[in-house]
Amino acid sequence: MGWGDLGVFGEPSKETPNLDQMAAEGMLFLDFYTASPLCSPSRAALLTGRLPVRNGFYTTNGHARNAYTPQDIVGGIPDSELLLPELLKKAGYTNKIIGKWHLGHRPQFHPLRHGFDEWFGSPNCHFGPYDSRERPNIPVYRDWDMVGRYYEDFKIDLKTGEANLTQLYLQEALDFISKQQASQQPFFLYWAIDATHAPVYASKQFLGTSQRGLYGDAVREIDDSVGKILKHLQQLGISENTFVFFTSDNGAALISAPKQGGSNGPFLCGKQTTFEGGMREPAIAWWPSHIPAGGVSHQLGSVMDLFSTSLSLAGLQPPSDRQIDGIDLLPVMLQGKLTDRPIFYYRGNELMAVRAGLYKAHYWTWSNSWEEHNKVMGIDFCPGQSVAGVTTHTQEEHTYLPLLFHLGRDPGEKYPLSFASDEYQRAVERISGLVQQHKASLVPGQPQLNVCDQAVMNWSPPGCEKLGKCLKAPESDPKKCSWPH
Amino acid sequence: MGWGDLGVFGEPSKETPNLDQMAAEGMLFLDFYTASPLCSPSRAALLTGRLPVRNGFYTTNGHARNAYTPQDIVGGIPDSELLLPELLKKAGYTNKIIGKWHLGHRPQFHPLRHGFDEWFGSPNCHFGPYDSRERPNIPVYRDWDMVGRYYEDFKIDLKTGEANLTQLYLQEALDFISKQQASQQPFFLYWAIDATHAPVYASKQFLGTSQRGLYGDAVREIDDSVGKILKHLQQLGISENTFVFFTSDNGAALISAPKQGGSNGPFLCGKQTTFEGGMREPAIAWWPSHIPAGGVSHQLGSVMDLFSTSLSLAGLQPPSDRQIDGIDLLPVMLQGKLTDRPIFYYRGNELMAVRAGLYKAHYWTWSNSWEEHNKVMGIDFCPGQSVAGVTTHTQEEHTYLPLLFHLGRDPGEKYPLSFASDEYQRAVERISGLVQQHKASLVPGQPQLNVCDQAVMNWSPPGCEKLGKCLKAPESDPKKCSWPH
Repeated sequence: MGWGDLGVFGEPSKETPNLDQMAAEGMLFLDFYTASPLCSPSRAALLTGRLPVRNGFYTTNGHARNAYTPQDIVGGIPDSELLLPELLKKAGYTNKIIGKWHLGHRPQFHPLRHGFDEWFGSPNCHFGPYDSRERPNIPVYRDWDMVGRYYEDFKIDLKTGEANLTQLYLQEALDFISKQQASQQPFFLYWAIDATHAPVYASKQFLGTSQRGLYGDAVREIDDSVGKILKHLQQLGISENTFVFFTSDNGAALISAPKQGGSNGPFLCGKQTTFEGGMREPAIAWWPSHIPAGGVSHQLGSVMDLFSTSLSLAGLQPPSDRQIDGIDLLPVMLQGKLTDRPIFYYRGNELMAVRAGLYKAHYWTWSNSWEEHNKVMGIDFCPGQSVAGVTTHTQEEHTYLPLLFHLGRDPGEKYPLSFASDEYQRAVERISGLVQQHKASLVPGQPQLNVCDQAVMNWSPPGCEKLGKCLKAPESDPKKCSWPH
Repeated sequence: MGWGDLGVFGEPSKETPNLDQMAAEGMLFLDFYTASPLCSPSRAALLTGRLPVRNGFYTTNGHARNAYTPQDIVGGIPDSELLLPELLKKAGYTNKIIGKWHLGHRPQFHPLRHGFDEWFGSPNCHFGPYDSRERPNIPVYRDWDMVGRYYEDFKIDLKTGEANLTQLYLQEALDFISKQQASQQPFFLYWAIDATHAPVYASKQFLGTSQRGLYGDAVREIDDSVGKILKHLQQLGISENTFVFFTSDNGAALISAPKQGGSNGPFLCGKQTTFEGGMREPAIAWWPSHIPAGGVSHQLGSVMDLFSTSLSLAGLQPPSDRQIDGIDLLPVMLQGKLTDRPIFYYRGNELMAVRAGLYKAHYWTWSNSWEEHNKVMGIDFCPGQSVAGVTTHTQEEHTYLPLLFHLGRDPGEKYPLSFASDEYQRAVERISGLVQQHKASLVPGQPQLNVCDQAVMNWSPPGCEKLGKCLKAPESDPKKCSWPH
């Protein structure tokens, strides 16, 4: 989902009354970022509080490449990483993930081996359907075992866009919350829905209800579900004791527009890029009687802050034996304090850009290659947008003379500041210092997204025997994964 | 000002608390349009309730050209046009215009000859400073007489952007409202401020206060002033008896960005164009205890509706001897009723595009000419945006096969519908009918913006003798005005 997909962020159809209401009752973050312009690395960052380059969710197969976790990926979340639910357990929390895990699908990466107590959802994207010979359909798990596969047991109608998955995920959430409330146990719910990811889907009752087409139907269903979850918390009397945060793992995928792609509002480009459209996210915090209603914050925030903030809420300290990139947002939300901190925009293992205050310096620019762009059904991460020297189709290095934008005057990254200006000199000097400091202390993790192997796909997930859904894996043939952008 | 310039419309710096509050207390129009992508024609349409092609505010000097009222223009608002204040007089209203008139500066076009009782402001844009030989500075009037000139008596510092004009206009507004309230007389105030028009300006206390630079400072001062006007109405106890509407006369001028140009949010291009960025406007209606607080409307609205709506509020009927393009929005605002009506996008005398429901058909596309575009400091009405076959730099006719967009799925006008689709056929058939009907009944007015003459400039406005500010006009030498875009 993109920054511009909510009514409260200026989506012109204004079809998200529940999320808009959540913002009115809580705090809106206007300058909130994900940790990568792509799904898996962002999610790994959310749960570890660490940049993908530290936690291993990147590739070195090419320069500045986006990589994720398709089902032939060999890697996943390393055991050495400490995930938020692992830490919350120490404070007595029961942890559940509903929806897409995306941190690796092989047994050692299973969410219940990394701190979660319950899981309903899938390890990978809901791509498909597959033929079960070349490629198995993606499994859906309940806890340790798979309970079916997409397109077989969990239908997604690619023609109509109908699928009831968001309703299933909603019911799971409501039930889990009820159960935790009944047992008076604290809980962490990671509600990782994926209806706005292509192939976009919505339940029957939402199909055709949006002015925005199928994508809008999916947004409406998510909006409706969020409303129901918040209401449930209120009805159970635990809303003042429950912190809720809504955000997204990357900007709207403009390559999927107009039918399956959302909006990044006034920002440049979308998913896969390190322009604002790729990484600036809708973000709303909600905690009645604690976070002041109707608050708006310009704190530079990150999904990684949810790690530190959640620990803080649980009275825990973040691990001290490793670099944590997240910061505790409680002082921002409860006392309106602002913390000066940079935002790092990575693509793979390359630091593409850095934001400090209102300035953003690009050290590398790239949208996608000419080769991809010029294909007949060309891939274009910036459709309809073209800023000379900025949305480049070759990887352009600006290390020694970064492209600098002032995001207040120029949120769309269209007008680089003059290299000769005092303003440029001052801002770049400051950002260069931050970069130096960052790079000096950076210990990259073992890259997890380099090796692919058809043998590791979801042929025979645990529980497949009971369902008669085990498939035969081909022989192992590990290869370097191909990451074209 | 552009659609995306207010926080409530998703401006990412969110610096318009008063306008956002006005929306929260009133009704937000998300699909509200001006009548032309340029200032003078839009303002003529607002005050006459009629399209510029009817009221004469267009040119035939070139095909599909934008024209306005610089000080060498010979034409202006024809006597045959009935202006809103002329009509409101019949219901006992006192009418005041504060700010930019723009409907002609020669004596016969003076606002006090067209229904206004009071005026403080200028007839033309605040361009300058001029040398008083080749070109006089623009006068500022109080009622019938000029009281000074821009840059001479009413300072605008082009270096710092400082000018206290918005404060003068604010005080004028507050005083007028107080006076009317004291005398228990109904009033119409046309508060036509121009701080966001290049050269953009703000008062000292607002300079440097915005994240968005000088343009943002100007927006903040306007926002602050609107807040003060609304508060004044409340303090005088007449807010429930006063209808207030906020909108703009054209989209943000992206040619002036980033320093002097605003934001059209997710929409395509800006001022001067008939894409959404050129004509979709921020719009807020406010009338406590009548218009429900927090309302949002998708009614296709137009500045011309303010003519009909205002008459309706005053218990008057619109003139029946001519075509009125505005509709009465009271049923929309008070009862939530929606009226199906088209929006016509003109450039000069050419119908460029038509919106009906969520569909928009382009019969002509043009951004600006290659000639203008390719100059070194090239003029570009769509900076950073380029949609093949849409943001064309030649005038492209699509009369027999209009380009069709679905503004719900594709508000940015990037993905024309397939000519072969049923959806295309159905929508174009419907819109073609509307166009046929529109064109069949169209009686164009005498074009007012064809002839320019240096002799008609503001050399010796009424009152100049008293100030010793009369200048000698050159000999009359009428020529066809040049309208390059």
